[in-house]
Amino acid sequence: MLELPIHPLTCFVLVRPHYPENVGAAARAMKTMGFTRLLLVKPGKMAEPSHVMAQKMAVKSLDVLQATPPLSDLGSALAGVSFTYATTARRGVSGVLTARRAAQDAVQRAARGERVAFVFGNEKTGLAEEDLYAAQAQVRIPMAADQPSINLGQAVQLMAYELFVSALEARERQEGTRD
Amino acid sequence: MLELPIHPLTCFVLVRPHYPENVGAAARAMKTMGFTRLLLVKPGKMAEPSHVMAQKMAVKSLDVLQATPPLSDLGSALAGVSFTYATTARRGVSGVLTARRAAQDAVQRAARGERVAFVFGNEKTGLAEEDLYAAQAQVRIPMAADQPSINLGQAVQLMAYELFVSALEARERQEGTRD
Repeated sequence: MLELPIHPLTCFVLVRPHYPENVGAAARAMKTMGFTRLLLVKPGKMAEPSHVMAQKMAVKSLDVLQATPPLSDLGSALAGVSFTYATTARRGVSGVLTARRAAQDAVQRAARGERVAFVFGNEKTGLAEEDLYAAQAQVRIPMAADQPSINLGQAVQLMAYELFVSALEARERQEGTRD
Repeated sequence: MLELPIHPLTCFVLVRPHYPENVGAAARAMKTMGFTRLLLVKPGKMAEPSHVMAQKMAVKSLDVLQATPPLSDLGSALAGVSFTYATTARRGVSGVLTARRAAQDAVQRAARGERVAFVFGNEKTGLAEEDLYAAQAQVRIPMAADQPSINLGQAVQLMAYELFVSALEARERQEGTRD
């Protein structure tokens, strides 16, 4: 697996996920892009890493799932993290970053050794306002309309992809400079 | 829904999809980014738009699913299409475009009124060599390793997202020029 500076410094946090399928899909989505640190905060009673549907969806990513202890609050998940990006599907949140801009920012922070976290809310309700605004930055994936919303596993996939592509671009720029 | 020139001119073609969940997830993924033309070529016996799991996954996207007639060959799906992008997970295919580069190219073609298609293969086997190389371009989504592969519904989400973001950027550049 290609490991770039962003990889060991980034965690993905799912707050109150409900569907085990989404937890498993998130694990796989992260791993396709080289990320392995998944944290679950107050998962719903089915959304356990050990649920058969979580395991079924986490194709070749059981290591990511199994390393995931359920946490009782977001603060514990963010211990040691210096910059937190909270995701939202809402339009009109002021100062919100696009997924791409947030990824570029995170890659720059990781290059300085900072730990970063991307936080995703519940499938139906998203993040609580207090969790959204407690983060240092808010992130929104561009969408053509408010409905349908982006599935939770898909949102994790898109964010992980943007981070990986930004990290690849940063490496290419650095190699270009070095020549 | 925000409609850009790329939207009515792009179709997504799934060849021999096996899991109805992925067909439903693809429909939802497309619609989040404003796309509605989904075509199924030789779907597996469960991968029908009417399957309960396809419908369950196609949250608020049943219109995309229901407009999908199963086709018996890829040629029928590509009737009227002037440029086809075939997706592959394989490394080392020569001349392969990244998803982002392909999206930028497709947006330019759509601005000239060309119809484009993005073709995705079976979950396990991908596209047959002949289908991959019959396309005008081959596309690969960057990945950190060969395993796990990107789930089919996730691949459709990433490609639809890149197309939408490229189309938004093209519109911004155009508006910038006009001022």
